Amino acid sequence: MRLSRSLVPTLKETPAEAQIASHRLMLRAGLVRQTASGIYAWLPAGWRVLQNIAQIVREEQDASGAQEMLMPTIQSAELWRASGRYDAYGPEMLRLKDRHERELLYGPTNEEMITEIVRSSVKSYRELPQNLYHIQWKFRDEVRPRFGVMRGREFLMKDAYSFDLDYAGAVVSYRKMMLAYMRTFQRLGLKAIPMAADSGPIGGDLSHEFIILAPTGESQVFYDAAFEGIDYTGGQFSFDSEADLQRFHEMMTGSYAATDEKHDTAAWAKVAEKREGRGIEVGHIFYFGTKYSEPMGLTVAGPDGKPVVPHMGSYGIGVSRLVGAIIEASHDEAGIIWPDSVAPWQAVIVNLKPGDAACDSICEDLYAKFAGKALYDDRADRAGAKFADADLMGHPWQIVVGPRGAAAGNVELKRRATGERQELAVDAALARIL
Amino acid sequence: MRLSRSLVPTLKETPAEAQIASHRLMLRAGLVRQTASGIYAWLPAGWRVLQNIAQIVREEQDASGAQEMLMPTIQSAELWRASGRYDAYGPEMLRLKDRHERELLYGPTNEEMITEIVRSSVKSYRELPQNLYHIQWKFRDEVRPRFGVMRGREFLMKDAYSFDLDYAGAVVSYRKMMLAYMRTFQRLGLKAIPMAADSGPIGGDLSHEFIILAPTGESQVFYDAAFEGIDYTGGQFSFDSEADLQRFHEMMTGSYAATDEKHDTAAWAKVAEKREGRGIEVGHIFYFGTKYSEPMGLTVAGPDGKPVVPHMGSYGIGVSRLVGAIIEASHDEAGIIWPDSVAPWQAVIVNLKPGDAACDSICEDLYAKFAGKALYDDRADRAGAKFADADLMGHPWQIVVGPRGAAAGNVELKRRATGERQELAVDAALARIL
Repeated sequence: MRLSRSLVPTLKETPAEAQIASHRLMLRAGLVRQTASGIYAWLPAGWRVLQNIAQIVREEQDASGAQEMLMPTIQSAELWRASGRYDAYGPEMLRLKDRHERELLYGPTNEEMITEIVRSSVKSYRELPQNLYHIQWKFRDEVRPRFGVMRGREFLMKDAYSFDLDYAGAVVSYRKMMLAYMRTFQRLGLKAIPMAADSGPIGGDLSHEFIILAPTGESQVFYDAAFEGIDYTGGQFSFDSEADLQRFHEMMTGSYAATDEKHDTAAWAKVAEKREGRGIEVGHIFYFGTKYSEPMGLTVAGPDGKPVVPHMGSYGIGVSRLVGAIIEASHDEAGIIWPDSVAPWQAVIVNLKPGDAACDSICEDLYAKFAGKALYDDRADRAGAKFADADLMGHPWQIVVGPRGAAAGNVELKRRATGERQELAVDAALARIL
Repeated sequence: MRLSRSLVPTLKETPAEAQIASHRLMLRAGLVRQTASGIYAWLPAGWRVLQNIAQIVREEQDASGAQEMLMPTIQSAELWRASGRYDAYGPEMLRLKDRHERELLYGPTNEEMITEIVRSSVKSYRELPQNLYHIQWKFRDEVRPRFGVMRGREFLMKDAYSFDLDYAGAVVSYRKMMLAYMRTFQRLGLKAIPMAADSGPIGGDLSHEFIILAPTGESQVFYDAAFEGIDYTGGQFSFDSEADLQRFHEMMTGSYAATDEKHDTAAWAKVAEKREGRGIEVGHIFYFGTKYSEPMGLTVAGPDGKPVVPHMGSYGIGVSRLVGAIIEASHDEAGIIWPDSVAPWQAVIVNLKPGDAACDSICEDLYAKFAGKALYDDRADRAGAKFADADLMGHPWQIVVGPRGAAAGNVELKRRATGERQELAVDAALARIL
C-alpha cells in the first residue's frame, strides 16, 4: 500500500486512556480504533497482523488433523439450557431477544453448539475421533474492559473441540493440541510455556494454560530453567505418532511451571534452577470428559453396537489478544518490533524526497517487486517524521531511499529489531529481504 | 480430508423444511446446519466454499485499490443516533443492552461506523480518495427467515465504503466497484447483470443491483440480449484508467436491464432482442453523496484550507448468499455442480474397495499429490452410495479407483459438469486436473 492513500492514522501523542505498552502502541501505530467500550475496529495494518496470526494458527490446527468450520456468533438460549449453563453463566454473557421475544445470546464459547452439531451428525464410533475448530468472534461482557485488545469485549478466538471414544483417545487429542499450540507460538515469535491450570470438577491433570513471557505480563510466573533449553520445534515430533506425542507431553510437563494462582511453594523449593518473570495467558487446553456429551445426549454406536458417550476436550487460543501479547513481548521505546511472521508488511520503503526522479524510480521499482509485501511511504513529510513512523509501526525492515544514495543506485537498509544499518545496492537490499 | 474422519454429514432424504434447491442441497451435502431460525453453522465443506468465495471477493477488492479492515459486529446505538437512523431502522435491527444498560446493536451495515472512523482519522484532501472494506458477519432480524442462507438472519457480507472529495471522484470510485464486481462474479462462474436500482432521496443513476441469472431466482428480470455478447473479462479495463472505467460503465449500462420492481414497459418495448428470466440479487453498489458525512460532521481540509464534506458510496456483496446463489445457478437432479473456482475440493478420490492393496496404494498416492485439494472417500460403503455422495457434493472431478482398473494402474475420471468419463493412467488423470 501507498501510505499517502492508506488509512494508517499514526499518532504522535500517547492516548490518555492507554495504560499498557501494547494498547498505547496499537493506537499510536494506527492498528485499531475503539468504537465502543472494549470493542475495536481493526484498521488495515492491524487487520493484516490479525490475519497473519490467524493463518498460522489455522495451518497448525490443520497440520494436527483438526477440521475448520464456522459456527455463528448468535446462539439460542435453549441450547445452553440443555447443558445447564444458561443460568450458571454470569453477567459476562451478552443476552438478547429477537423480534419474536425468543431468547438468544452472543456466544462466549461453543461447547454446547458443537456438541449438538456432532450429536445430530455423527452416529458411529468409526467416525471418531473428530476435532473441529473455528476462528470466530466471541463476546464477553467484561465489567471493566481495559488494556485494549488484551481484555476487550468482542474478541477473536480459535476454539477447537475434540470428540473421542474413550479417555485414552482423548489424551491423544489433548497431546496433539499441546504440540500444535507450541508450534503455533513458536512461529509467532513467542516463548510460551504450558502451565498446569485448574481442571475444575473433572479433576486430573489435563488442563494447561499457555503463558508467554513478557515483562509487562499480567501474572507472576515461576518456572524451571529447563524450559529455556527445550527444543520442541521442527519435525522431531509427529502428530501421527502416539509415542512422539507422549514424549512431547512428558517433556512439556516434566519440569515445574506455574502462575501465581497455582504456585506450589513446596514444589518450587525443589527446583534447582529457578526462573521468575511476568506472563500473559494466550491459550488454554482442557479435557472435560463427558461434561457436555452426557447431559446433551451425545452418543455414538460403539463397536458392539451399544451407545457410547464420547469424551471431549476444548482448546482455545486468543487470536486478537495475541496481537497485544506479541507487542508486549516485542517492543522498545520507539515502537513495535514485529516478528517477521506476523508483520503487516515485511518492509517499509521510505522515500526521503518524493518528486526526485532517482528516488521515485527506485522506490516504485522496489514497491512493484515486493508485490504487496511492502508499505511505501510516499508521503510529502519530513524525514524525521517518516523515520519515527517506521520505527513506531515496527516493520522488520526499513529501506531508506534518499537522493544522494539513489544517484549511486544505493539504499540504506535498517533492521528494526537490531537497529543495524547498511548501505547497499538496490538488488542486494532486496535479496536480503525476499 | 479423509471422508471417514471428516464431519461431512450427507443426507439421503430431502429435509422437509427446505423449499428451494440450494437450501435442500446445502443441507443434503453437509455444508451447513441450522442452529437457530435463520442462523447456520458452516460445516467443513461449506466453510471451504465460503472461504473460497470470500478470497475471490477480497482479491478483486484489493485489485481495485480498496483496503481491507475489519469492523466489529456490535455497535453503539449512539453512533446510529448521530446519523438519525437509530429510530428510522425497523425491527430488522437486533437491539440489545449490555450489563451497564448501554444500548448496543448487532450491525446490519456499517455506514455510520466507517464515517466516524474516517472522521477521526482523515484530515486532508491529500488523503482522499479512500475505499475501505471488510468481510464481516451482519445480522438482520428477518420476520420470516427462509431459503437457507439465501435469506438468513446472520449472514456474511462484504461491504465497502468510498470517500471522495467531490462528485466526479465518487463516480470514479463507483465505476471501480462496478468493474471489480463484474470481475468477481465472473470468477465465481456466474453470469451477472447490473440493473438500475432505487437511488432513494439522493436521486441520480448511480445505484445498481447485480443480478445473477438462475431459473429458480426470486425476481423476474428483463434484459437486452446485448448482455449475452458483452465481454468484460481479462485485462482490457484497467482500474487505473478513468477512460477505461467510463467505457466499462457505459457498456454495462447502455442496454436495457431491469428487475420486475423497476421494469419500464415503454423502454422495454424498444428493445430489439428481448430476454426474460429469473434472477437473484447478489450485490448492490450505491452512491449517496453526503448523506452520512454531512450529519456526522466528516470534513477534510480542501486544497484552499477550507473544510470539504466528502462524497460517499457503499458497495455490498452477499458472500454467504452467494453460496446459495451459485448452487441455484449450477446444479442438477443429482446434486451440486461446483464451479472449479469455489469447489471445496477440486476432486474426490473414490476408493471402491478399501483394503485392496492396489486400490489403497493408488488412492493414498493420489491423495498425497493433491496436497489438501482432494477429498478422499475412504469409507467402507457401497459403491453406489459413494457415487451418489460424489454427485451430491458436486466436486468438479471424480477419480474412481476400482480393483480391476487399479491392477492395470488405471483410474476412471469423471467430470461432474458434463458427465464425461474416461479411463486413464493415474498420472494422466492427475495431469488433467492439477
